[in-house]
Amino acid sequence: MTTTLPAQSACSTSTTSKGLRLVAKGQFAWAETPLRELSPGEVIVEVAGCGVCHTDIGFAYEGVPTRHSLPLILGHEIAGRIVMAGEQARKWIRHSVIVPAVIPCGDCDACRSGRPTICRKQFMPGNDADGGFATYVRVPARGLCPVPDELPKGLTLAMLSVVADAVTTPYEAIRRSGLSVEDVAVFVGAGGIGGFGVQIAAALGAAVVAIDVDADRLELASAYGAALALNARECADVKSAVRSFAKQSGRHGIGLKIFETSGTAAGQQTAFSLLGPGAHLAIVGYTAQKIELRLSNLMAFDATAQGNWGCPPDQYPNALSMVLEGRIHIQPFVEVHPLGEARQVLEAVHHHQLRRRAVLVPQ
Amino acid sequence: MTTTLPAQSACSTSTTSKGLRLVAKGQFAWAETPLRELSPGEVIVEVAGCGVCHTDIGFAYEGVPTRHSLPLILGHEIAGRIVMAGEQARKWIRHSVIVPAVIPCGDCDACRSGRPTICRKQFMPGNDADGGFATYVRVPARGLCPVPDELPKGLTLAMLSVVADAVTTPYEAIRRSGLSVEDVAVFVGAGGIGGFGVQIAAALGAAVVAIDVDADRLELASAYGAALALNARECADVKSAVRSFAKQSGRHGIGLKIFETSGTAAGQQTAFSLLGPGAHLAIVGYTAQKIELRLSNLMAFDATAQGNWGCPPDQYPNALSMVLEGRIHIQPFVEVHPLGEARQVLEAVHHHQLRRRAVLVPQ
Repeated sequence: MTTTLPAQSACSTSTTSKGLRLVAKGQFAWAETPLRELSPGEVIVEVAGCGVCHTDIGFAYEGVPTRHSLPLILGHEIAGRIVMAGEQARKWIRHSVIVPAVIPCGDCDACRSGRPTICRKQFMPGNDADGGFATYVRVPARGLCPVPDELPKGLTLAMLSVVADAVTTPYEAIRRSGLSVEDVAVFVGAGGIGGFGVQIAAALGAAVVAIDVDADRLELASAYGAALALNARECADVKSAVRSFAKQSGRHGIGLKIFETSGTAAGQQTAFSLLGPGAHLAIVGYTAQKIELRLSNLMAFDATAQGNWGCPPDQYPNALSMVLEGRIHIQPFVEVHPLGEARQVLEAVHHHQLRRRAVLVPQ
Repeated sequence: MTTTLPAQSACSTSTTSKGLRLVAKGQFAWAETPLRELSPGEVIVEVAGCGVCHTDIGFAYEGVPTRHSLPLILGHEIAGRIVMAGEQARKWIRHSVIVPAVIPCGDCDACRSGRPTICRKQFMPGNDADGGFATYVRVPARGLCPVPDELPKGLTLAMLSVVADAVTTPYEAIRRSGLSVEDVAVFVGAGGIGGFGVQIAAALGAAVVAIDVDADRLELASAYGAALALNARECADVKSAVRSFAKQSGRHGIGLKIFETSGTAAGQQTAFSLLGPGAHLAIVGYTAQKIELRLSNLMAFDATAQGNWGCPPDQYPNALSMVLEGRIHIQPFVEVHPLGEARQVLEAVHHHQLRRRAVLVPQ
């Protein structure tokens, strides 16, 4: 296994990447593959770290189909260093970058209309091609987010991998909601996504409520921005608790800004039940489960429910700035594991045995 | 019963209004009441016509509570002439007007934030006080929409009553959706609300699909702007039919603009099933029934579902202009009945026996 490569723009024929392939539902195999010739707009990233997302678990264990057929290396939260680049991407050589989880084509109707997240030619590593649970990954250079060489103390390039989804997806949901200092923001789910959402909303000056069923997560959310932490298992009337908090907060924003960040049916039920006049409900987490609800409440409350499929690459530098300025803390919310243990880590995430977001790091 | 009043700004003590009161669920009684002293900002409207809305049926037969306790005269789609006005509203005397179904206070946080439809001090005739199923109605002068004395041939002031909800509510939903000539607009339900929605969307240049279970409604929708009419009872695959229409339409708008205008659970299921990348779903109709759906589709499709509680009064003149310019046709979509038959008409609407929107006209 080669982990260091000469920084160059030509593809070395002897270089290989080692990664964990999903072979079939629940079945993995390690594979070592040569790095093929690069297209002019592509780069090879030497992976510093790759976050493990709920979406990977869906692909690996729940039968959610990947767009590229199996076998496929998963992983779409990637940070690393560019070690090779095609002709049009040479400026990236030696740069540290975060690879957007969703890379739009930049040229279609959707992209030109300012809706890059629904670009139909979008590229997602670990879905459209081999992803980041590997030593190297080949991606388009479009939309790469540059990372400075010097990072604040305690922060590593590997940890910044989670910016590519766990940070930017709630960031984009919050941006679209128009959250301001006059708002109350409610996060239903304070896990991988919600923990960062809480911090972003608090950094923007909103009064933040975190709701979860896990006491440790709630404690962490309280330490990093939540003014009210509610355990849904213990609080008999979440709705009343949120309402009286909103009333006492003295905020004059119109309607609650609710963020469903649990990706569970129960969380969605709670989030929808919090709708009131002028509310904005962002669906950030994903579950394939259906729920029963009175859709007309959107009409009766003059409310909006909105989903976002990731985040446009042009927003990544803004989210990264918040991390580098210490307004979003990553370290307490992640745990780093060697890539060699990827199989066990995925299994543990699948069985909800990890408390923090896992980042896989090639040794 | 007095139907003509001297146009004056003082309240005549001898003047009475005759209207149909809802006494209890499903029970009505005619009542004649004196017109009480006006507040400075109030006016008395001599009702020319009052539309019968699905919401009235909810109040009258389905146990939906009115904000003012019973007995109460229903009716919130009102057009008429101002015959008395308080001190601050004298300019309205003798003017023909449409009374907005929802009249915001104009002064609260919501109103000042440009969200008047969720004003908590809003006034709705036939809900907060006696409404338009009467010869006269007392309303605030705020937000009244002036109607010219000369109307296009075939159009009466009575017919214009339906602008106050049946026209303006889909108008506002369409406005919020950002509909353009590049869009495909789908109306699920071509009845009282959908019939006008189809016309507005077509007038704005969109390619319009109407879906209903009633052949006559679909025929009317086709005659007034729908390029494709689908009978949900006969079309085995509504989704595919809409998709292939959208493809052939050559429109480059991002995502379908879907308008749920049936106010039924089945219609909501159909509307939600049409969600695709970048779609906008407007919940315009109301039903208290719950439906089962995969809320995460909003996230997977980067889509938005939005409701609107009526329409801000400042949009009424725009909607009325479209009617006066002949871009929205009202006559084919309404049927006029004498106020004296209000009880029977409400009963008929309740049992879905009328094909068009009923307008009650004092004789």
